[in-house]
Amino acid sequence: MTHEQHPAALDGITLEKKVALLSGRDFWTTESLPEAGVEGITMADGPHGLRRQSGEHDHLAMFSSDPATCFPPAVAVGTSWDVDVAARVGAAIGREAVAQGVDLVLGPGVNIKRSPVCGRNFEYYSEDPYLSGVLAAAFVRHLQAEGPGVSVKHFAANNQETNRQTISADVDPRTLREIYLPAFEHVVREARPATVMAAYNKINGVFASENRWLLTDLLRDEWGFEGAVVSDWNAVVDRVAALRAGLDLEMPGGDAGRDHEVLQAVRAGELDESVVDVSVRRIAALDARRGSRTAEADLDAHHALARELAAECAVLLRNEHDTLPLRGGVRIAVLGELAEHPRTQGGGSAHVNASRVDVPVDEIRAVAAAHGSAVAYAAGYRLDEPGSQGLAAEAVRAARECDVAVVFAGLSERWESEGVDRDSLDLPAEQVALIRAVAGVALRTVVVLSAGGVVSLEPWHDDVDAVLGAFVLGQGGGRAIADLLFGARNPSGHLAETIPVRLHDHASSLNFPGEQGHVRYGEGVYVGYRQFSTFGTPVRYPFGHGLSYTTFVTRSVSARVTGPDTATVDVQVQNTGGREGKHVVQVYVATTAGPVRRPVRELRAFTKIDLGPGQTETVRFELGRRAFAYWDIDAGAWVVAPGTYEVQVGPDAHTVEVTTSVELTGEIVAREVTLDSTVGAWLEHPVIAEPTLEALGFAEATISEEHMAMVRSMTMRQFINISGLDLPVGRLEELAATSRTH
Amino acid sequence: MTHEQHPAALDGITLEKKVALLSGRDFWTTESLPEAGVEGITMADGPHGLRRQSGEHDHLAMFSSDPATCFPPAVAVGTSWDVDVAARVGAAIGREAVAQGVDLVLGPGVNIKRSPVCGRNFEYYSEDPYLSGVLAAAFVRHLQAEGPGVSVKHFAANNQETNRQTISADVDPRTLREIYLPAFEHVVREARPATVMAAYNKINGVFASENRWLLTDLLRDEWGFEGAVVSDWNAVVDRVAALRAGLDLEMPGGDAGRDHEVLQAVRAGELDESVVDVSVRRIAALDARRGSRTAEADLDAHHALARELAAECAVLLRNEHDTLPLRGGVRIAVLGELAEHPRTQGGGSAHVNASRVDVPVDEIRAVAAAHGSAVAYAAGYRLDEPGSQGLAAEAVRAARECDVAVVFAGLSERWESEGVDRDSLDLPAEQVALIRAVAGVALRTVVVLSAGGVVSLEPWHDDVDAVLGAFVLGQGGGRAIADLLFGARNPSGHLAETIPVRLHDHASSLNFPGEQGHVRYGEGVYVGYRQFSTFGTPVRYPFGHGLSYTTFVTRSVSARVTGPDTATVDVQVQNTGGREGKHVVQVYVATTAGPVRRPVRELRAFTKIDLGPGQTETVRFELGRRAFAYWDIDAGAWVVAPGTYEVQVGPDAHTVEVTTSVELTGEIVAREVTLDSTVGAWLEHPVIAEPTLEALGFAEATISEEHMAMVRSMTMRQFINISGLDLPVGRLEELAATSRTH
Repeated sequence: MTHEQHPAALDGITLEKKVALLSGRDFWTTESLPEAGVEGITMADGPHGLRRQSGEHDHLAMFSSDPATCFPPAVAVGTSWDVDVAARVGAAIGREAVAQGVDLVLGPGVNIKRSPVCGRNFEYYSEDPYLSGVLAAAFVRHLQAEGPGVSVKHFAANNQETNRQTISADVDPRTLREIYLPAFEHVVREARPATVMAAYNKINGVFASENRWLLTDLLRDEWGFEGAVVSDWNAVVDRVAALRAGLDLEMPGGDAGRDHEVLQAVRAGELDESVVDVSVRRIAALDARRGSRTAEADLDAHHALARELAAECAVLLRNEHDTLPLRGGVRIAVLGELAEHPRTQGGGSAHVNASRVDVPVDEIRAVAAAHGSAVAYAAGYRLDEPGSQGLAAEAVRAARECDVAVVFAGLSERWESEGVDRDSLDLPAEQVALIRAVAGVALRTVVVLSAGGVVSLEPWHDDVDAVLGAFVLGQGGGRAIADLLFGARNPSGHLAETIPVRLHDHASSLNFPGEQGHVRYGEGVYVGYRQFSTFGTPVRYPFGHGLSYTTFVTRSVSARVTGPDTATVDVQVQNTGGREGKHVVQVYVATTAGPVRRPVRELRAFTKIDLGPGQTETVRFELGRRAFAYWDIDAGAWVVAPGTYEVQVGPDAHTVEVTTSVELTGEIVAREVTLDSTVGAWLEHPVIAEPTLEALGFAEATISEEHMAMVRSMTMRQFINISGLDLPVGRLEELAATSRTH
Repeated sequence: MTHEQHPAALDGITLEKKVALLSGRDFWTTESLPEAGVEGITMADGPHGLRRQSGEHDHLAMFSSDPATCFPPAVAVGTSWDVDVAARVGAAIGREAVAQGVDLVLGPGVNIKRSPVCGRNFEYYSEDPYLSGVLAAAFVRHLQAEGPGVSVKHFAANNQETNRQTISADVDPRTLREIYLPAFEHVVREARPATVMAAYNKINGVFASENRWLLTDLLRDEWGFEGAVVSDWNAVVDRVAALRAGLDLEMPGGDAGRDHEVLQAVRAGELDESVVDVSVRRIAALDARRGSRTAEADLDAHHALARELAAECAVLLRNEHDTLPLRGGVRIAVLGELAEHPRTQGGGSAHVNASRVDVPVDEIRAVAAAHGSAVAYAAGYRLDEPGSQGLAAEAVRAARECDVAVVFAGLSERWESEGVDRDSLDLPAEQVALIRAVAGVALRTVVVLSAGGVVSLEPWHDDVDAVLGAFVLGQGGGRAIADLLFGARNPSGHLAETIPVRLHDHASSLNFPGEQGHVRYGEGVYVGYRQFSTFGTPVRYPFGHGLSYTTFVTRSVSARVTGPDTATVDVQVQNTGGREGKHVVQVYVATTAGPVRRPVRELRAFTKIDLGPGQTETVRFELGRRAFAYWDIDAGAWVVAPGTYEVQVGPDAHTVEVTTSVELTGEIVAREVTLDSTVGAWLEHPVIAEPTLEALGFAEATISEEHMAMVRSMTMRQFINISGLDLPVGRLEELAATSRTH
């Protein structure tokens, strides 16, 4: 063992003490090792607010936690499409962490919403990896700038709750690289998170926590991660295998038997002590995040912030007859228990004990009063007591006597939580009946949807005049909704997730949640809008959709090649409506270049800009190599194929408003051929294609398209044998040799 | 080497001579080895008629073959849903083989139609493995009863033409077992084919021709195959690996270098000589199929048979206003070049040089004359000359002056052939325009569709009054169509393949035809109607659909359990219409029993019966174990889960007309559990479930549904750690030990 592997700091520290450091002291803290300057740190759940348990500990949020601000959860940050929202939530949580003595915040979650029924989708940003990665990186940078570290989770391919602790996500390498890993990669490369949390599940049969390819080859060697890998709570099955794979810290701690397993493995020569030392040094480095508790966080200011940011997140899905914003001096009927007992977040480890919660109906009353409007309220239903008598009838009576009915509909937190997935997108039948009955009698009907994930808008969508997708907005959501309804704020959220017509329209439904220990990601890269837009499957609302009280027109897009595989894009947008508003510029790239089928378009850049009425602005995007690349499984690398790339800008993933294109030289992957490669492979080779055509006599011949298709499929050896032609085999063997040197 | 491995017959025969026997003599014959009594046999393509090349040899049907009867291809036999049709085609081909001196007929093809655009679907029966297997077994039994042997192909998972020679079909084991293998298994077990042909493609990365699991473990050891395995032509890449895997005969032959590779491997000790001997004995056994050429086949009688059987295959898809059968004394306009130059079959190795071909328009004229009807004809379009001037206008003029227009539409044989797949389901745009123009002016419009696979009926379907799906019917199809149009024959074909609204509605479209050497069968078992019926995706016409000139009502179904996993089913059917007709009784089984999600229903039995007007008949089906079983990947076995099974009878795979159910005791798969198994797995164990509930204290507790769902997902160890409860770990370990002994 060399000196480099055993730095001075660990000299003379017993193996037992070092091993003890590799798992937590208890549920929320790590061990100390004063000899190495390690005092131990404190953690708390916290993707959208802290869940610091100073009393009893658990991981299911069955026991309460200390009050903290419940900011807009990731689902809402996703719909904000605003890095500033993500950054401000991160910074505020960082400040509360410092105030509460929390050194490591367990979040953000950057898993992809493979299916809309995943119970934990409220904790994740989007079905799109680029949007997820950019928002999460902003969150992490600004949280960590306050001092505490983060734990980016759940690494990786943890896209369902059902059997998450044992299921193997069976994913092909291109899909992993293009869909499920990029958000992690972006955060690791751009924001240098203190830790990454290994997920419970297996990937292609190997537990994430024991997956050396994932935790070492990819995360550290390829992406350059320098922090510590932490296990999800109780995720580790084989302690020694996990250490060997690169998992540094097992959580929670307190099980001496686990230390014993490691000690025994080192003593038996099955585990090199240097592996222990490397992890100890990473945990010691993490310990430097330990902060001193400073002044209390300003929870009033944070509540105001939670309100302000929540208003950036809600998505105005539908607004016929300019139903919204509500006019002054009207009679408003607010209907639905969710207006009284709002959904602010989801359940499980992410559940925050909110410092206060805005009650939507109260906030609406307050804002309405200022507008000279009267508000009546009726519960309409009880989420947790289906069939409550008479409530619906009372609500319909109220609807009949108003100018506008605002129905709050949505899901109970019980069904959107860690550990369970939904089995349907439907609203409870009672709520659907209520919406339809109200729409049948009210002059105008607005629906406000409160759910951590997508709910179906069928079959009632066409019956109502306006729909506000409020998802879960955190503790300030009540005021934000009131402000948006009355136009004090202008809606600017956009869907970060497709709203399908039917759950089963999602290709992931074919393989969700899997069976007999395996879930096959059979749809490959066709997740979310990548599926719907490529295969033309009708949707209720596409990814990227969101209305405003003003209107925007994208005037132009231009693109300029800046290198073999990069481009600069300028987009000019105008606010053509009568009031100020925020607009999201969505830049998609589309191509048919290269040997793999690409989604019809993919989000590659975006920004949110604020424009006054009539104002025009040009925004610039630098599209890097990855905006054009696909993962090539033969090369085991990102490749930008030479060819034409369309740069498309539009209001959603299904609609191209303006488009331009660039020609990229990219890079040519010269694939070796042999006589057992297809004729097609020979004819795709950049160097030998032409001489091969000549050798086969094709250069002069006229060959029908369908005959050529048949020939391209054959191996060269088969073509030689089957064609009956007297082909120059020696020349072909020379060309094959040439292919191997290029 | 023991005596058993080296029987007397091979004693004293040199290795060289034995090895020479393991590949063909030339394109169509095998080597002789007089010392072993082997004279060599002659082969010919032949799934729906012989392609015996007494002149120049090839595999692409570029050179002509000797005249033979072109019977209805497998696509048509599939739509007949009639084992008698399959049997009579098989027997007739067998007789022609004897007459032409053919000892081995290369067919039938029993691959599953995974995608409707596979170029060779005309050679395959169905998207359903049971229907495919039953029809193919009848074909094989009756062909082989005439003397010659068959080669069941293409074994296995050869479900596309694009890159078929190199692509790896990446298929999970349940899907292989439930969808892609059962037709082969049924034929091997029930009809004992002389040979099986190994496909070109790879399965999960291993060439079929080198796949020992496929060719030996499964085919011989599990299914009991005793014949020889033949390669597809030029399929073998690694000769020695193929021999080792169980491939006996490489075709074609004539390459001495290949023998040399085998000799060298034996001499180097890399290949045991006993492997060579085993294959030599199988080829010697195959040689016994050699027949003496007898009298000529009666091609006139076979043409009559081809006509008779073709009429069983066409599917009456739509018949509004009783447009069909055509009445006497009317003016008929027959339109479309396909009426003059009919499609009878597909292209490639299966292409038969038909002894005669019925021309539809001539046959219609002949039958019409007998009915006192007049027939006008216009070509309307030229399949191979798009844009031919004036043809459409002339056809529309003819349509305007008739009582009924019969438009023949369909595809050119060029695009339905070995080696190429289609990229669309659309009819040529010219034909779509013609159909719509004709329908706009004709009093009544009938469309006759001629294509080896499914074509789209969009967007013209609703414009026309009747549609006859004639697919490709062989050389007697012209007369069969005429007889069906005028009601001399009553349509009785039913779809063996779903007609979707859009190609992209097929889940296989997500992964077709694959890329970079792999095609992922991501849709799993949800192929064809299994997808559409389970996920409620709208279709144009469902699997099983087919109209008649009479009507049938299924009066009742009753089922009686006959064992732990078998049942007897009685179905009573009545012909409620005014004329005799044939009805297909389709029996589907549906269940939610067991640990895997099942398609909403699966075809498990069928029969075609002939009923006079008003006649009622009860038919009996014996449903065996496999009618209820799924493939359990943990057990590596077929399992019938205990539970309720619905037996549903209906006119197609989407419609249940009558239903009943049976309770099967099935078999309980006791799966070992450990502390790292999920709590759910513990609670599913037949023996320890109850004591586990007690040990966890759940027996008395009231636990909410969603909380229980969360707990079931955890491993027992995680639950112990996370719950914070003081659980009896010792007792749980005892129960785990108990699970391992049951």
